[in-house]
Amino acid sequence: MSVTVSATLAVNEAMAEKRRRGLPVLPMGFGEAGLPVHPALRDALSAGGDRNAYGPVAGIEELRVAAAGYWRRRGLRTDPDLVVAGPGSKPLLYGLLLAIGGDVALASPSWVSYAAQARLAGHRPIMVPTPPAQGGVPEPDLLKAAVTEARGRGRDVRAVVVTTPDNPTGTVASRETVRRLTEVARDLDLVIVSDEIYRDLVHDPATAVHSPAEFAPERTVVSTGLSKNLALGGWRLGVTRLPDNDLGGRLRAELLGVASEIWSSPTGPVQQVAAYAFGEPAEIADHIARSRRLHGIVARAVADRFAAAGAMVAAPQAAFYLYPDFDAWRERLLERGVTTGPELARFLLDTYGMGVLPAAEFGESGDALRLRVATSLLYGDTQARRYSALAADDPTALPWIRAHLDRLSEVLEDVTAPLGAMTAR
Amino acid sequence: MSVTVSATLAVNEAMAEKRRRGLPVLPMGFGEAGLPVHPALRDALSAGGDRNAYGPVAGIEELRVAAAGYWRRRGLRTDPDLVVAGPGSKPLLYGLLLAIGGDVALASPSWVSYAAQARLAGHRPIMVPTPPAQGGVPEPDLLKAAVTEARGRGRDVRAVVVTTPDNPTGTVASRETVRRLTEVARDLDLVIVSDEIYRDLVHDPATAVHSPAEFAPERTVVSTGLSKNLALGGWRLGVTRLPDNDLGGRLRAELLGVASEIWSSPTGPVQQVAAYAFGEPAEIADHIARSRRLHGIVARAVADRFAAAGAMVAAPQAAFYLYPDFDAWRERLLERGVTTGPELARFLLDTYGMGVLPAAEFGESGDALRLRVATSLLYGDTQARRYSALAADDPTALPWIRAHLDRLSEVLEDVTAPLGAMTAR
Repeated sequence: MSVTVSATLAVNEAMAEKRRRGLPVLPMGFGEAGLPVHPALRDALSAGGDRNAYGPVAGIEELRVAAAGYWRRRGLRTDPDLVVAGPGSKPLLYGLLLAIGGDVALASPSWVSYAAQARLAGHRPIMVPTPPAQGGVPEPDLLKAAVTEARGRGRDVRAVVVTTPDNPTGTVASRETVRRLTEVARDLDLVIVSDEIYRDLVHDPATAVHSPAEFAPERTVVSTGLSKNLALGGWRLGVTRLPDNDLGGRLRAELLGVASEIWSSPTGPVQQVAAYAFGEPAEIADHIARSRRLHGIVARAVADRFAAAGAMVAAPQAAFYLYPDFDAWRERLLERGVTTGPELARFLLDTYGMGVLPAAEFGESGDALRLRVATSLLYGDTQARRYSALAADDPTALPWIRAHLDRLSEVLEDVTAPLGAMTAR
Repeated sequence: MSVTVSATLAVNEAMAEKRRRGLPVLPMGFGEAGLPVHPALRDALSAGGDRNAYGPVAGIEELRVAAAGYWRRRGLRTDPDLVVAGPGSKPLLYGLLLAIGGDVALASPSWVSYAAQARLAGHRPIMVPTPPAQGGVPEPDLLKAAVTEARGRGRDVRAVVVTTPDNPTGTVASRETVRRLTEVARDLDLVIVSDEIYRDLVHDPATAVHSPAEFAPERTVVSTGLSKNLALGGWRLGVTRLPDNDLGGRLRAELLGVASEIWSSPTGPVQQVAAYAFGEPAEIADHIARSRRLHGIVARAVADRFAAAGAMVAAPQAAFYLYPDFDAWRERLLERGVTTGPELARFLLDTYGMGVLPAAEFGESGDALRLRVATSLLYGDTQARRYSALAADDPTALPWIRAHLDRLSEVLEDVTAPLGAMTAR
């Protein structure tokens, strides 16, 4: 066993180091929401200050009831006793992998930590490509073939992880893709772990998000948290919703066993915050709506810059991610000594202070010249600027966001220019 | 892999359930400090409310510098870069087991989660008895024999875990025992993981606590946290201190890798609390001194009741634990159908609502009629009562604590009476 720091956290620390040294940065590597804490959440944290007991491993009842309501309002009837809270959805996902206890199929590309967690849990991930522009969900026929083949080689594949909406691509799988995925999972008797942490950050409310739990409630575990919609990544709170049957009961018992031996319970005062936030009072719903609008405007503006420079990029539909493909620039990049995705990311970091992650970090081949671009750290590096970005009619007109976008265009022009013309370093 | 909820958390939930049903309880199963939050800690939590970024995996610099100062004041010079914070010392210990990556020797008895974590990490613990009345440290000669024998059978033993002061026994290993332990560890090339979370809760300040890091700094990892001395178990904050050499650097890199894939970072506002608390300002040092005094008085009073009833029990020196041995009552217990430690704990729970944990949960044989008794939940179940207990000159004279103690005497008398005389149910 040997793991290095999660790529996404590592690029965040590289950016912080460059800033400390006074170097210019274009921070687009780290998947942090980049927004201030809503004051009502701070109030709830302070009010929860006497929650110093460990409390139940699954989380306090008020929180589990509120999370059940959150899911019920999204069409998923939920028993609060089948909700388990944890210090982030990341540890819950790890606990679920241990609880499920077999190999797992993942989308390629998919979030950096699924595969790393599977390895930590002693399993090997099976990577399955997604349909074009429908990230996060393995293409169902390919999933069937890959799992059947892996089982033929004696592998004990027990689960498939899906992400909807998706990180790294910022896209949303269609209803039909999700439905077919659940059929294949049923045929193969796979548990579906559906990471829906970006569910509330679909840019256009008309874009429907379909959970596999709609079609295969008997085998779907859903997870979400406060890290993305409410920008509370640093507060560490996630929840998971288990199936209402024997499988759910078994997974709950195993998950609570793991939780009790690794993390005990989520931070008490933050549980109180979550009990409040999952109730979705008007001020919180409004705050999320404003955040979603900002994410959409800036993600589209960044996508436009990449498209203008000749990269292929799917239109962003959710969250604050893009996944542009630089394949058209392969020859120009070769002139710069760049032949792989990791070399491209390193080149952008070293030459321009631009932090992005290569496709290889998301389970794709090193040859792929795709990059995961996070747009949410462009909102500003002070709370004041982030508040302004949230409030602005046109956030891209704010001078610091405009400057980031212009710098991005400049970098992209430089990278794609004939070698002698590079000037933007 | 199959784990059940940690025994200590399970007995806590059983007590809560009995209370909900209005049944009488004598709650001595759960190792929670049972004291209110100092107001300055609540203020620090509120002030940290804008820490919603994930931040560094190892924890914010202010916290790591403060923790280094905490250790320096205890004779252990510490580089803040070799401090790693996590959401409790429990996840840090799990991360260290993964980072060390081999089998581990544990004291018998020792805290319930070490062995469970080793199994989760895919290893088997090697249990080594401690010297009499010196809990937490494997007897050095027995450790040498056990590890040598296990290696002879091909096992890859890489570490030994010690707890000083100790849970479950409430005792403190002598300087000489700790020194000899470090010599054996050096001979065997074992990493020493020293859990020192009860360090500040020695009842008599004249009782010295010796860390293995004093004698073998090159191979000792120390962990502590805010859960016990400041009763912040539910806030989830621990720290670990790594050796200042290649080993420390390797363990740090592996531990940060694991941390980044499982829990990301500790809760941001709680990191701010820890940066304040590890600085040990006067009001916090005073609060800990008062807590320590209360723990000592009540632990001794409870020990006296057990001794009066004929149980063997080492004098409590630290924390809020006792480990009485009911062997003298074996025949009387047999009359009640009780032949093992787990049966005894179950009998006490079902018959008297008395929550304690059997020795078997701490790695001892089921035959052992020893019980881990936690005394800190006798202080009261409201914040008001806990404040009163902290403030009282003689906490055992407070009516609710007195009632718990009297009930305990009654139960113990009943358990040891001839069968026909049982009345205290």
